[in-house]
Amino acid sequence: MIIVGERINGTRSRVRDAIMARDADFVEEEAQQQAEAGADYIDVNAGTGPEREADDLAWLVQTVQAAVTLPVCIDSPSVAALRAGLEAADGKAMLNSASAEEARMKAVLDLAGLHAARVIGLTMDDSGLPTRAEQRVAIAQKLVAKAEEIGIDRDDIFLDPLARAVAVENEQGAAFLDAVAGIRQSLPGVHVICGLSNISFQMPARRLLNRIFLAMAMARGMDAAIVDPLDGGLMAAVCAGRALLGQDDMCMGYIEAHRGGRLAEWS
Amino acid sequence: MIIVGERINGTRSRVRDAIMARDADFVEEEAQQQAEAGADYIDVNAGTGPEREADDLAWLVQTVQAAVTLPVCIDSPSVAALRAGLEAADGKAMLNSASAEEARMKAVLDLAGLHAARVIGLTMDDSGLPTRAEQRVAIAQKLVAKAEEIGIDRDDIFLDPLARAVAVENEQGAAFLDAVAGIRQSLPGVHVICGLSNISFQMPARRLLNRIFLAMAMARGMDAAIVDPLDGGLMAAVCAGRALLGQDDMCMGYIEAHRGGRLAEWS
Repeated sequence: MIIVGERINGTRSRVRDAIMARDADFVEEEAQQQAEAGADYIDVNAGTGPEREADDLAWLVQTVQAAVTLPVCIDSPSVAALRAGLEAADGKAMLNSASAEEARMKAVLDLAGLHAARVIGLTMDDSGLPTRAEQRVAIAQKLVAKAEEIGIDRDDIFLDPLARAVAVENEQGAAFLDAVAGIRQSLPGVHVICGLSNISFQMPARRLLNRIFLAMAMARGMDAAIVDPLDGGLMAAVCAGRALLGQDDMCMGYIEAHRGGRLAEWS
Repeated sequence: MIIVGERINGTRSRVRDAIMARDADFVEEEAQQQAEAGADYIDVNAGTGPEREADDLAWLVQTVQAAVTLPVCIDSPSVAALRAGLEAADGKAMLNSASAEEARMKAVLDLAGLHAARVIGLTMDDSGLPTRAEQRVAIAQKLVAKAEEIGIDRDDIFLDPLARAVAVENEQGAAFLDAVAGIRQSLPGVHVICGLSNISFQMPARRLLNRIFLAMAMARGMDAAIVDPLDGGLMAAVCAGRALLGQDDMCMGYIEAHRGGRLAEWS
């Protein structure tokens, strides 16, 4: 299970202030805390205006890299900002994200191919967000075909079947889970990732829903997630999920988390 | 999701004492508490010696039925005790359990057929407990073929793929989950059930593992479980799982559980 830590995001006002003030200490501490909590990638999203986003993202990438040895996940709707972030990155970064929208697919995948970066592909195209599992799988296949044409390895492709709110459409949790299984079955070698929080939009007790949904998606083959690693209940669920799926040799990760007191509150 | 409440079990010393003293108040309260917490069946297991188990089980069945309107799940290794329990039961009971062992399969299935009872079938045979998913599915198929020969409807058959401890065999969680999916796929119309607690045998923080494993099994198609309904974290996971799988119309069950304060501790 690959954990992408989502906390350094300019939509959080404290992060936005840090970006504006070039407050490296704050950003470094956010990166370090997420690394200690078990993140494998640190997502950086500036969320600032088009005239400055590229500069902000490059600064975030450099600042995070000065603080931790983890790779970054460069997160922007702008291809120019993704490029600036990638040029500032050492080693193998991840791009968040491509989609199957015509204007975006080739540009982002070309960038990933050029820099040998990993890339997240959202299963949406110019007709919008799909509702049915088969539509998501079909878009995933299109994205992977395009990525392979460019020379991107399947191991560098992370497909996000896009969770939709169960409060709005009751059947969308099951449709997402079927898409996870469908992608894993029809595209062996790719990864499946998602940002969890949409699933619980407009519901009470959201963290419980997010955590149980993560376990369910792991059981269907999801092997990466964009989450807040400081959410102890969520990371306890990841830890349990790894042990239960045979991804934790001798269950030592779980036993060590228990010894470190990281499970008690959730058991 | 069908919840079989497991608390009235003579291996608990307090329950054993109540059986010996014919303490109906204690048994009634255990039944009522489980009913209020969301049980659909009340399991009764006397766990006493062969010379008295049939009488004890009949008394437990009558005592539970006097306290709640829920059906009972009659739980014994002894066919004679199962028969005595069934004869004391009103309405549609469940038998816990048949298996594919020669000495047991026909006797328990005949009993279920005769009384139009539902029946749990353990996926084990005379060669023991299977390790691989395909072995479990093959035994399930054998059990269902035999049950259908007797005239038992698939809707009355609950297959238990038998969880084994991940602490002892790391890969057994995944094998169980694959068996759940395999049974649902190859035997449409049957139910899949399990007792959860074996999965976490010899592990620390067991309740967290049980809860996450339940969510994972629900995501693969398990639709019943033998559990302690007074375990608030487990029932919160069931509640979240139902909402996430589209089994909770308008998510009202989840929203009401939240309003009733039953989720707060777990979110």
